[in-house]
Formats: sequence, C-alpha cells, structure tokens
Amino acid sequence: MEQVIIIKVGGNIIDDEQQLTAFLQAFAHIAEKKILVHGGGKLATQLAAQLQIPQQMIDGRRITDAATLKIVSMVYAGHINKNIVARLQSLQCNAIGLTGADGNLIQAHQRIHPTIDYGFVGDIDSVNTALLQQLLNANFSIVVAPITHNTQAQLLNTNADTIAQEIATALAKHYGVSLIYLFEKAGVLMDVHNDDSIIASITPQQFAQLKAQGIIADGMLPKLENAFSALQKGVQRVIIGKANVLPELLNGTSGTTLTSGT
Amino acid sequence: MEQVIIIKVGGNIIDDEQQLTAFLQAFAHIAEKKILVHGGGKLATQLAAQLQIPQQMIDGRRITDAATLKIVSMVYAGHINKNIVARLQSLQCNAIGLTGADGNLIQAHQRIHPTIDYGFVGDIDSVNTALLQQLLNANFSIVVAPITHNTQAQLLNTNADTIAQEIATALAKHYGVSLIYLFEKAGVLMDVHNDDSIIASITPQQFAQLKAQGIIADGMLPKLENAFSALQKGVQRVIIGKANVLPELLNGTSGTTLTSGT
Repeated sequence: MEQVIIIKVGGNIIDDEQQLTAFLQAFAHIAEKKILVHGGGKLATQLAAQLQIPQQMIDGRRITDAATLKIVSMVYAGHINKNIVARLQSLQCNAIGLTGADGNLIQAHQRIHPTIDYGFVGDIDSVNTALLQQLLNANFSIVVAPITHNTQAQLLNTNADTIAQEIATALAKHYGVSLIYLFEKAGVLMDVHNDDSIIASITPQQFAQLKAQGIIADGMLPKLENAFSALQKGVQRVIIGKANVLPELLNGTSGTTLTSGT
Repeated sequence: MEQVIIIKVGGNIIDDEQQLTAFLQAFAHIAEKKILVHGGGKLATQLAAQLQIPQQMIDGRRITDAATLKIVSMVYAGHINKNIVARLQSLQCNAIGLTGADGNLIQAHQRIHPTIDYGFVGDIDSVNTALLQQLLNANFSIVVAPITHNTQAQLLNTNADTIAQEIATALAKHYGVSLIYLFEKAGVLMDVHNDDSIIASITPQQFAQLKAQGIIADGMLPKLENAFSALQKGVQRVIIGKANVLPELLNGTSGTTLTSGT
C-alpha cells in the first residue's frame, strides 16, 4: 500500500522562525506523499489585540464571533498558509495551500453545544477523499489551514488536530497512513519532567495500563484517546514527538509511536 | 477549441455586498471553464489604517513594505479569496482558491525601478499553464488572489489586471479565451459622462482612430493597450463592462468587445 505522511504542526513551531525553517526543510525532504496541517499560533491573538477585538478561550478553543472569524481566516488561510507554501516551493516541494472550502475539501457544521455559544467554530462532517487523492497523485504536497466551511457559504474555524485526524482516517482506506503530531515534548513521557523518559511505543493495552497508573493524564489523555481512535479507523501509526527530529520520528528512533498492537 | 472565460473583478464589486452577491451568482452559472481573478478593494487600506501602518500609492500601485505585504496576504489570500470560494461552493460551483505560490501557479520577480522602491511588488515572469489545465480539466473553477511568489520563498503583491491578462495569454494556446474586465463603467464610452454611449466593439484600427480623436484617453488608455496586446498574443476577445450584466457581456449584447479585427 502506498504511504501517506500527515503532519500536524502547531503554534509552538509556527511562532518560532528557527524551528519553522528547520521543520519545513525536513518536511520538504520527505519522499512519500505528504500533507501538512497547520494551526495558528499566537499571530491571531496578537492581531485581535492590535484591533482591540476581545478574545475568549474555553478549554483551549477560541470563541469565534464574526470579527474573530475574519481574523483567523486572514491569519491562518492568508498569512501563515501562503508563507508556508512559498517556503516549501523554494525548497523544491510542490506545495498547494487549501482551506476546507477549496474544492469542498472539508465540510463541517457550526458547533452545537448545550450551554456555550462557540460562534463560527466548525465540527467536521466529511473529508473530500477524492480531491486529496487527485492532488496527492499529481504529486502535490497539500498544506491545510484550519478553516472549513458548511457548504452554505459560511467559513468555520476548526481545530487543526481534528482536521489532521479526520484527513488521516479518510485516507486510511486508500493508503498506509502515518499521522504525526509535532509537540513541545519529545513524546509521551514516563516522567513529565524528564525529556529522556520517552515511551517508545504504546499499544491500546499498554495505554490502558498507563492510564490506570496515572502516568498519562491531563492534556495528553484526550490527544491519545483521539490517536487510538484513528488507529481503530485504519490509520497505521500515530507518532508524537518534537519537530526538530522529524526524520527520527518517521523511522521510529525518536518520539512515541502508537500502534493498534495487532 | 474549448472555451475558457477569465474574469477580473476589482474593489468596486468586492466592496459592495449586493453587487458581489449578484456577480458570484452569475459567475457560478457560467457553463464554460472559468477563472476568477480578484483584486483587493478597500479592505487592505482599512486594515492598514486600523493597524496604523502608513500606506503609499504611486500611480495606483501600493508601495508594499513587509508590514503591508502581510496585510495584503491576509486580506487578499485569506479573507477575500476564501469567502469568495465558500460562496461559490454554496452556489454549486466547485471553486478552488489559489495564490501564485500554490502549485507554483505564477512566478514573479520583485519590481526593479530606476527611482521608486515598490517593495514587495511582483512583476510576472511565467504562468504554470499545465497546472491551470489540470485544474480546469478536473472541472474546478479557479479563484486567483493577487499574490505571487519569486520561487525563493518571497510572496509578492501583484496587480490583478496583469494576472488576468497573463493567465489569458498563457491559456490562449490551448483554449479559446475570453478575458472580461468588470468595471464601474458600462464599457468604453464615446462620451465619458453618458453610460448609454457604449462603443459595442473596437478593432485595433478603430482603437487607433479613437485615440487620435482623443475619445479614449487617461486611465482607459493603458487598459486598452494591454487588452490589444492580449489579443495579439492569441486571446480571442476582451470584454469590458459592468458586473451586473455579466450574461449580456458574454453574449455580446452589453459592454465593449475588443477583437483583433481579423
């Protein structure tokens, strides 16, 4: 089965010029078909502050009123996406930058929540697998901004981790998919204060044990639960680790690799 | 020869919600393969004012320092491009929004000028005809933002009229190309104060006469000179007229049609 590498990078790399440069060089060198999903980082928050548009975060999600949607569309789909594309092009990587609206790549609906009005935040309904295949087979590297649409002309601010996961599971029927989450930490750690205590691989059985022992907790828990859910849906492996060791993550000599264990 | 319709819309339509809605509906209904090139309108200027970044225009061109490039990338490639794409998607038009960096669509170089430093303004070197053909043949309607790149990771602010013209001439070898410039005026007018005095068609011979008589002058002159240059390079027709009569422009019952006269 042909391989596809899907990598999610967040603000910690996008906001750090040196890290971003090194990461994009490593990304451009990946020989396999590849997709980059990027988050937004601090730039949207900074622009909102400059424009005096108050921002409210709930559980790490940005409440997205109309003014904030305009900001994230500008920052994510305009500034960040196009700069990443131009930099990859300069590295001989034929990148094409898309939102979920382009070619109807990702359909979503506005989040429904019993008590919180998230505004223009999207939860994903479907991924256009045929479009991804078409572009991957034409040897494009796809750079996805965390903006989707509801097919009724409404753009929606959408979590980049979730986009990466939904793209990974959508492609799992057609490719051998590796899903890589780049992260501040070197991987899943036995001791959260010791970057050398990386757990090299985790199966669902081991995950259950680590949870029971309280070694995996807090912010890492939902991340790993999502990752194992992706594995259940056919993704071959999920890798968590640092951006500066991308080749080592891909060959399994750094970071934490989650597998279905079967 | 298969037909391609290339339409350029500027700020007068983008800034006017009602006009934009009507135009996008008419665009979505065009049966032929089609490309929309959009300008920026007042939004970039407004955002620059809000952020207190002074703007300088010389002959209608925006001097583009680094802060201004960020603004136009955000506004053109993010906000405007993605909203147009989402709206076309809601009208069952399978739009995909691109800058010149995406898929290396448009290569440019930073403008060289003996006395004026335009900053990050791009003059076009080449258009990726194969990419356009690939996307048009896959039945995408392409929405192009006026941002290009120099292949060395630098985005460049580029005139949308010129982008439309360069795309038109690049495609002229492969398709019957119509290039439409949407405009405040109903077409080229015998009397600039009378919207009913449209000149229905102009050949290069007639253009020379109208110039000699002083009927065509000022801002219209370079526009028409560029249009006749596109016709010389194989574009079948250039049409100038109002957005609210797009079907009539396309069937020749409104606006001014420029032809090579042969």
